[in-house]
Amino acid sequence: MAFNLALDLAGTFVFALSGAMAGIKHKLDIFGVLVLSFVAGNLGGITRDVVIGAIPPAAINDWPYVGVSLIAGIVTFYCYPKVDRLRTPVLLCDAVGLALFAVAGAEKALAFHLGPVAAVLLGMLTGIGGGMARDILVAEIPTVLRSDLYAVAALAGAAVVVIGHKLHLPSPAVAAAGGIVCFGLRFLAIRRNWRLPIAHETQELTRIVPTPANQKDKR
Amino acid sequence: MAFNLALDLAGTFVFALSGAMAGIKHKLDIFGVLVLSFVAGNLGGITRDVVIGAIPPAAINDWPYVGVSLIAGIVTFYCYPKVDRLRTPVLLCDAVGLALFAVAGAEKALAFHLGPVAAVLLGMLTGIGGGMARDILVAEIPTVLRSDLYAVAALAGAAVVVIGHKLHLPSPAVAAAGGIVCFGLRFLAIRRNWRLPIAHETQELTRIVPTPANQKDKR
Amino acid sequence: MAFNLALDLAGTFVFALSGAMAGIKHKLDIFGVLVLSFVAGNLGGITRDVVIGAIPPAAINDWPYVGVSLIAGIVTFYCYPKVDRLRTPVLLCDAVGLALFAVAGAEKALAFHLGPVAAVLLGMLTGIGGGMARDILVAEIPTVLRSDLYAVAALAGAAVVVIGHKLHLPSPAVAAAGGIVCFGLRFLAIRRNWRLPIAHETQELTRIVPTPANQKDKR
Repeated sequence: MAFNLALDLAGTFVFALSGAMAGIKHKLDIFGVLVLSFVAGNLGGITRDVVIGAIPPAAINDWPYVGVSLIAGIVTFYCYPKVDRLRTPVLLCDAVGLALFAVAGAEKALAFHLGPVAAVLLGMLTGIGGGMARDILVAEIPTVLRSDLYAVAALAGAAVVVIGHKLHLPSPAVAAAGGIVCFGLRFLAIRRNWRLPIAHETQELTRIVPTPANQKDKR
Repeated sequence: MAFNLALDLAGTFVFALSGAMAGIKHKLDIFGVLVLSFVAGNLGGITRDVVIGAIPPAAINDWPYVGVSLIAGIVTFYCYPKVDRLRTPVLLCDAVGLALFAVAGAEKALAFHLGPVAAVLLGMLTGIGGGMARDILVAEIPTVLRSDLYAVAALAGAAVVVIGHKLHLPSPAVAAAGGIVCFGLRFLAIRRNWRLPIAHETQELTRIVPTPANQKDKR
Repeated sequence: MAFNLALDLAGTFVFALSGAMAGIKHKLDIFGVLVLSFVAGNLGGITRDVVIGAIPPAAINDWPYVGVSLIAGIVTFYCYPKVDRLRTPVLLCDAVGLALFAVAGAEKALAFHLGPVAAVLLGMLTGIGGGMARDILVAEIPTVLRSDLYAVAALAGAAVVVIGHKLHLPSPAVAAAGGIVCFGLRFLAIRRNWRLPIAHETQELTRIVPTPANQKDKR
């Protein structure tokens, strides 16, 4: 359980960084930034805990999660202007957080005796839930739904953990493997700009929802 | 319970279709489309299960819900461009899903010994929750809040189920009646363009929140 | 518990007013307005109940919460155009609701034996949850994240309740003190336009995300 806690806290910290950065970009005040840090860092885990019946959720009842989120938020708030180019670290933090949470989420679901499918889904949910809540709070379509191999990476990492658990492999090795698979996939996706397919938008589609542009073309 | 499962799965499938269609319209990638399928198909039921204490929610722990959502998402993703005019089927799928979920939601709440008011509310929530989550995820105001007789139809269907249950009528007949009432109301609302009233926006309102347009008028 | 119920219902009513007003502003129909009333009035409390394991949540299973929300929604819907200037009452209703909910939320969390940190957080969550859900439903960034001393006021009120409880002071006095602290802070924030700091947006920031305006400057 100590291992799970460490994974969870590390993931919370890096996700809270992402949350704070999103908050600052949207010109939220210091409290809004801290709320967004907490949400990005913890809402995936809180949702998982509510769904598996781990009540009250660790992230609310335990000091460390709250503290780690606030520290990440405050650090980001006061150091943001000094950082020159943030796009890459934001993406990397997010990828690390995704890997840590996908693994920790799947582990906790297994510890609460959920089935393998549920454990994989909850690992992914833990990984993408905080980021989705962060994006919803700033009124944007969650990145995870349009981005390059994001949720798939979390899913793969969680699946490695669940398969390793079924094969009774040693837990730390399985966790490490799951984390590496998730981070590796996400990192490659960012680096090589891998994208998942989007449905064809052919003339059929434009006919259904005519935009001003293609209406003009017809005249 | 088998009857509930069948209702739930059918509702999940048609709602997942709606979710996938919304995802494709917003140009999400294949995974985003599948996530939206799952959310639209299952978030109403998951929320209901969390609220009534049916932990872990069936939609996460059982294979069929996940499978049905994925199939609906994949089918929609690959068949979307071939479908010529989708507005009507989207609306009809949505109406069928609404009816199935309102009934199934009210039935499950009654099975978990909640009171009649709660059962009606949870039936409606099961019906509209997935669609609301779908719309929130693509950063739009949920259709249910501005559309024509949407939530009212779900409410009516759930109320029929609860009243029938109180009168000890046979369960399948009650479920069918509730579903027909809900779908019928929704279908008529779409067909005849029935709308619920909107609050008057008279001069009092424009005076409170002056827009550039009416500020110009005053000069 | 009767005291908690009274606090909760009063808070529900004023928050439901805010919800209905937001719904009318966004031109939702009568049902959308009622849904928004219910959400604004109850989602903070429902979330708190789910998180502390008070299943089913009082707001769904008990008549009064539903009734109070609907009355607030209907009153607002039909009286809205007659009210001349609503900005101030909306803000004051919101401040009163915030104070009542922060106190009631912290009290209920303590009654369910949660720790002091969790009780303070849940008091704040109860206070800001409904308003956040209201804003998310109309596809806006929640006011709480950018407004002047909003969540801080709820946090302070909840903290007063938790500290008073730890010192074994009489419960009604503690609740009153918490409510006054929260409302007072919020009222002063509105009156004196107190704002929390926002992160500096210096050249470093504009360099990262160049806007059309500063791109023009560079040429």
